Amino acid sequence: MALARSDAEALDRVDPLAHYRDEFVIEDESLIYLDGNSLGMLPRATRDRVRQVLEDDWGRHLIRSWDDRWVDLPRQLGDLIGTSLLGARPGETIVGDSTTVALYKAISAALGARPGRRVIVIERDNFPTDRYVVESLARQRDLEIRWIAEAGPDGIELDALGAALDESVAVVVLSQVDYRSAALLDLGSYTDAIHTVGALTVWDLCHSAGSVPIDLTGDCVDVAVGCTYKYLNGGPGAPAYTYVRAELQGELRQPIWGWWGRADMFDMEQGYEAQPDMRAWLTGTPSVLSLCAVEPGVSMIAEATVTAVRAKSEALTALTVQLYDEVLAPAGYVLATSRDPQRRGSHVTVMHPDARRLTRELLGVGVVVDYRGPDGVRLGLAPLTTRFVDVHDACRRMAVLT
Amino acid sequence: MALARSDAEALDRVDPLAHYRDEFVIEDESLIYLDGNSLGMLPRATRDRVRQVLEDDWGRHLIRSWDDRWVDLPRQLGDLIGTSLLGARPGETIVGDSTTVALYKAISAALGARPGRRVIVIERDNFPTDRYVVESLARQRDLEIRWIAEAGPDGIELDALGAALDESVAVVVLSQVDYRSAALLDLGSYTDAIHTVGALTVWDLCHSAGSVPIDLTGDCVDVAVGCTYKYLNGGPGAPAYTYVRAELQGELRQPIWGWWGRADMFDMEQGYEAQPDMRAWLTGTPSVLSLCAVEPGVSMIAEATVTAVRAKSEALTALTVQLYDEVLAPAGYVLATSRDPQRRGSHVTVMHPDARRLTRELLGVGVVVDYRGPDGVRLGLAPLTTRFVDVHDACRRMAVLT
Repeated sequence: MALARSDAEALDRVDPLAHYRDEFVIEDESLIYLDGNSLGMLPRATRDRVRQVLEDDWGRHLIRSWDDRWVDLPRQLGDLIGTSLLGARPGETIVGDSTTVALYKAISAALGARPGRRVIVIERDNFPTDRYVVESLARQRDLEIRWIAEAGPDGIELDALGAALDESVAVVVLSQVDYRSAALLDLGSYTDAIHTVGALTVWDLCHSAGSVPIDLTGDCVDVAVGCTYKYLNGGPGAPAYTYVRAELQGELRQPIWGWWGRADMFDMEQGYEAQPDMRAWLTGTPSVLSLCAVEPGVSMIAEATVTAVRAKSEALTALTVQLYDEVLAPAGYVLATSRDPQRRGSHVTVMHPDARRLTRELLGVGVVVDYRGPDGVRLGLAPLTTRFVDVHDACRRMAVLT
Repeated sequence: MALARSDAEALDRVDPLAHYRDEFVIEDESLIYLDGNSLGMLPRATRDRVRQVLEDDWGRHLIRSWDDRWVDLPRQLGDLIGTSLLGARPGETIVGDSTTVALYKAISAALGARPGRRVIVIERDNFPTDRYVVESLARQRDLEIRWIAEAGPDGIELDALGAALDESVAVVVLSQVDYRSAALLDLGSYTDAIHTVGALTVWDLCHSAGSVPIDLTGDCVDVAVGCTYKYLNGGPGAPAYTYVRAELQGELRQPIWGWWGRADMFDMEQGYEAQPDMRAWLTGTPSVLSLCAVEPGVSMIAEATVTAVRAKSEALTALTVQLYDEVLAPAGYVLATSRDPQRRGSHVTVMHPDARRLTRELLGVGVVVDYRGPDGVRLGLAPLTTRFVDVHDACRRMAVLT
C-alpha cells in the first residue's frame, strides 16, 4: 500500500517540532524548499535582531557599540554554538572569517604542530573548498596530498582510512557528513584511528552541525570548522566557527596574525603577541551585521535540542527513502544515500542522468532542490522548517518529470 | 579676533555638501560624532537596502538569490569602489574578507612574485594589523623585516624611504594616510621610488579612500587594500576591497585557494584552477548582509565626488588647526598632524598626557573622538556628516576639560 499524502499530513500533525516553522519568515506557502542545507531560511527573530543592530547599535550607539556590544561577539557566539551544538567546552569555539579562511587557518596550524611530517590526507569526495585549501597549503609547504578515493553511499570506510595512515601523516581533513551522498562518519572511531599514528584531525562540520548530535569533547577531536548558514540559519555567507581543543590551544598557532588576535589589541603595541585564549584565532574586524544574524537560529536549535532535531531528521530521511522506493526508483532515479539511518545526515541525494534539467524543471513546479554534479539531485531536509508533506509532494513531482 | 561659533555656522550655511547629512540616520542631534573615520555613520539608504536583502532576497527569494542577485556582488561592488574612488579600471578591484585577511593575501602574493628577495619594508607607524600580518609572513617564510622608524606629523620622508630600499626588497607596505598623525603620502612619487629597486608596493588605503583623491592607475600602484567601514560608511566590520593592477594579475597569485576563486566554481571539479580574472582573489563565501550594506555609502561619495569631499575635508582640518592654535594649544595640547593641508588626510590628532582620560570625559559631554595611544586624541572629520560647528563645539569642550 503506497504512502498517501494524508499519511504525510498525519506525520506533520504529530511532529513535536512542527511549530518551529512559524518562527521563520515564509512569504510563499506554496514553495517547497528542500535547500535549507545550502541556505537555511530566515528566522523572524533574526529579522528583528538585524534591524536592532542596524538602527540602535550602529545608527544610534555608533562606535560605542564596539566596546559594550560587539567586541565579545566572536567568543559569545562561538561558545553558544560550541556548547549547545558541538559538545565543546566554553572557550574552545570562536566565530569569524569565511569557512574557507577558517579551514586554511585550522589546517595550517595543525601542520605547524606536526613539523617533519609531510603528508595531508583528504578525500576526493570532500567539499571542493576543503580540497582547494589543502592544495594551496601543500603547494606552499611542498607537502604531499594523499587522496582517499571516492566512496559509495556509506562514505569512506574505517579500513580505507586506516590504509591511508602512517607516521608520515600530519593532518587528516574529513567532513562528518558528505555534501553529496550525506554519508555520516563516526567522529570518535575515525578520530581514534587518526590519533593512532599521531596525526591531527581537522573535521569539517558544515553539513552536520545543527542536524546531527556532535560530541567534540568526548570524541577527542582536535580541530573543527563549520559554517553557520545551513542548518544554523545564519544567513547568506554568515561567518564560520572554529573549534580548537583546549589542550591544544597552546600548541596550535594560526598563521594570519592581525589586530583582533593580539593580546590587549586596543593598546596597538609593537610586536605581535597572541591572545592567551581562543581570541588568538581571530584575525581582522568581524562583519558585525553578519555575525549578529547568526545567534537567533542557533538559539532555536539549542531550545529544540539537537536530539529532537535529529529524531525528526531521521524520520524525514526515512520517508524520503520510502518514497524513493515507491516512486523515484520506478522513474529512473538511483539512490546515492545510505539506507542505514545511522550512516546518513539530513539530506538525501538521488542520481539521474538528467539531474541538471530535472533540478531546473522542479523549480518551475515550485520545488527548490540542489543540483550536485555530475548527476545528483539533493533533497535537503531541515528539521525546523521541512514538513513531511513537503517531502511527499516533492518526490511525487520529481517522479512525473522524468 | 578669535573664531566664533557664528563663523562656523556661516561655513555650514555655504557648505555645498551640507545636505548629505540628511541622508544619514541621526538619532541624537546633540551628539558630536568625530569618529566617522573609525565607524562611518549609517546611511538611510543602507538601512533600507539591508531590510530588502533580509526580507526579499533571503526571506522570499532564498537560495535563488545566489544565482541572480548575490554571486557577482564582490565584483560589482569592487568595480564601483575602484572606478569611482580609487582611480582603478574595471576588473581590478574586488570585495571580500576582512582587511587583515585581504592584506595577508596581498602581501603574500606580492612576495611570491619576487622570489629570492628576502626583505619586507614597513613603517613602525603603520597600523598594527599591517605590522602583525607582515610579522606572520616573515616568520612563515623566514624573511627579514626592515622597519622604518616612526616619523613626525608629515610622515615618512621620501629620502627615509629611499634609504630603506635596495634590490633585496621584495615588498613595501605603506599606509597612504597614517592612522594617528594623518600624514598623507604621495602615492606616485613613493611608488616610483619603490619601483626603482624592482620591489612591489602594497598600499593600505583604509584611512584615505573616500576622503582623498586617489589615482591607482596613474600612480602605477601594484596592489592596494582598504576597508569600507570608515569614510565609505559600509558598517561595522564591513568587508575589505583588494586592488591588483591588471598587468600584474597573471603574475600575482593569492595564497588561500577556495571555491569562490576557482574557475567554474559551481562545477565543483577536482583540482584548483584559478578564475581568469579578479575573482581569483576570492576565497570563501562572502557575508552577503555585510557586503550589501557597503554600496549605498560608496554611491553617495561617488555622487558628491571625491573632489568636493576633499575640498570640504581640507576646510574642516584647516578649521581644526585654527581652533588648535586658538584654544587647544593654550590648554596644553600639542598638534600631531601636519600644518600643510597637502600632507594630511581627513583627521587631526592632538597629543596630551591625559589623552585617555580626556577622551573618556569628552564622551561624557557628548563628543565622540578616538583615543590613540600613547597620548593622542584623534578628531575624525567625515565630510558627508561632520559640520563645521561640530568642530568648533568639540574643540571648545576639549579646551575646558584639561
